[in-house]
Amino acid sequence: MIYIASDHTALDLKKVLVIYLKDNKYRVKDLGTYTHKRVHYTVFAKKLCRYVLSSKASNMSRGILLCRTGIGMSIMANRFKGIRAAVCVNEHMAKMSVKHNNANILCLGSRIIGEELALAIVSIFLNEQFEGGRHEIRVNHYDKIND
Amino acid sequence: MIYIASDHTALDLKKVLVIYLKDNKYRVKDLGTYTHKRVHYTVFAKKLCRYVLSSKASNMSRGILLCRTGIGMSIMANRFKGIRAAVCVNEHMAKMSVKHNNANILCLGSRIIGEELALAIVSIFLNEQFEGGRHEIRVNHYDKIND
Repeated sequence: MIYIASDHTALDLKKVLVIYLKDNKYRVKDLGTYTHKRVHYTVFAKKLCRYVLSSKASNMSRGILLCRTGIGMSIMANRFKGIRAAVCVNEHMAKMSVKHNNANILCLGSRIIGEELALAIVSIFLNEQFEGGRHEIRVNHYDKIND
Repeated sequence: MIYIASDHTALDLKKVLVIYLKDNKYRVKDLGTYTHKRVHYTVFAKKLCRYVLSSKASNMSRGILLCRTGIGMSIMANRFKGIRAAVCVNEHMAKMSVKHNNANILCLGSRIIGEELALAIVSIFLNEQFEGGRHEIRVNHYDKIND
């Protein structure tokens, strides 16, 4: 299951991605926003993180968060244990974010990248695999900030 | 005070940035790594976050975290309340990360951007101002994940 959410600045990009995901036979849950009315991206980041974390197969669930730059979404999402949110602006970052960081949420900026690049990034993000090994040691540190 | 840290993949970029910051009269504290020996970036992210948060003028302190893509550093750093870590690959993202997200840590990828671009990004990051207003409402959400 792919969860997706955006703020008002990225609504149009979200629509494009939802169509692409459905066309490619992914199950998609669009968590809003649904209009161009101004909203707080933080509210949508929290909502999506809770869906990803409470999903029955949460280790298989993925999320896509869209705002103006992707940065605000990533700060909010990475507050949650179990979430590994990656700001990506190109395919290589998307690839490495999964291979090395086991990213489960992709953060894209609607005012940073165009639609076609966004689709290419999403495709790689959803098809790469975590490499494990020494990267697993590091990923395990993410949820242990007090050690 | 500018705190800076990197893993082994970004040691050389860190050296360039430290020279630049000192040349530009910033007070700099280099928290390592200091050799090319393989390390866990997560350890350096934690160390730097603690320095930024415990700094006497923590609202004025800034951090720079460098790894292969910047993504791993940003995931780890954003686990900490009070830290707002931004992955930036261009000057516009650096500008918006401060204006809208009040970012206090900049995350750069040594294998994503070159030295000159990194210097341009750092310069903007250190000279922009948070815009406040509606962005302050959102930034205040970052540390309230249970609301």
